[in-house]
Amino acid sequence: MLAVTLICVGRLKDAFFDDASAEYLKRLTPFAKVNTVEIKQAPLSEKPSQTEIAKALETEGAEITKKIPAGSMVVAMCIEGKQMSSEKFSRIFTDAALTGRSHITFIIGGSCGIADSVKRQADIRMSMSEMTFPHRLARVMLLEQIYRAFKIAAGEKYHK
Amino acid sequence: MLAVTLICVGRLKDAFFDDASAEYLKRLTPFAKVNTVEIKQAPLSEKPSQTEIAKALETEGAEITKKIPAGSMVVAMCIEGKQMSSEKFSRIFTDAALTGRSHITFIIGGSCGIADSVKRQADIRMSMSEMTFPHRLARVMLLEQIYRAFKIAAGEKYHK
Repeated sequence: MLAVTLICVGRLKDAFFDDASAEYLKRLTPFAKVNTVEIKQAPLSEKPSQTEIAKALETEGAEITKKIPAGSMVVAMCIEGKQMSSEKFSRIFTDAALTGRSHITFIIGGSCGIADSVKRQADIRMSMSEMTFPHRLARVMLLEQIYRAFKIAAGEKYHK
Repeated sequence: MLAVTLICVGRLKDAFFDDASAEYLKRLTPFAKVNTVEIKQAPLSEKPSQTEIAKALETEGAEITKKIPAGSMVVAMCIEGKQMSSEKFSRIFTDAALTGRSHITFIIGGSCGIADSVKRQADIRMSMSEMTFPHRLARVMLLEQIYRAFKIAAGEKYHK
């Protein structure tokens, strides 16, 4: 069974996003071993400078790098990344299975994004939208797409 | 104050999506008079034909058309629509205010999308992603973007 790790910066503070994530994680249990790792968001001042933001991203980035499982395919979520349809996204999972990769790791940054050092480690830089979504909602959106990807791969009815 | 109507096909069955929508509706109260109208999803058989789907969409479409407030700008959400950044989306609201339009209506279809007859009435056909999201999650995503749009227009800190 494919293993999927979600490395997320920051916690799901809102109960409804927490509940939605839990629901998709539950629905994913027949398809994959999904594991969520939360990294603490580095503190920032009220009006942080670019240097301060870059430093915070590097602190978070060092933590993220430590948590990437050895040999895992890495997908970094970033607004400048490549968009794809749900069908194409589904192929990431089927291709991983075909090429013998047993682990896929998705990285969702905090409110300031992801450090360049982390992006450089990624096999795929992916975006879900031209719009900026809060990272907590992005986590729910990504979990839904992962669930949808397995349903598409299984030829099941969920996706039309 | 700008009025915003969301015409949605189908109900928010999951409590977490309902709670998330309620939260964004609450946050929007200082910025706009937002009103949600739910249209009943037309029933479909287990494996509906294209003709059956088209007929259901037209039934829903007739209901949607009745609910569009007179003189409102209409934005239809559809996967083939135009994507835009959150900043650009924000301009829909500021432009409406500048050109004296006091009402904007967003239409989110059900699981089979929106009838062509409705799309033809739209001033803007808009997409949030190349990916397919469940219409219930799309409603939460759209409400978040509307809230973000007003925060951007007000120059507030929420959006970076």
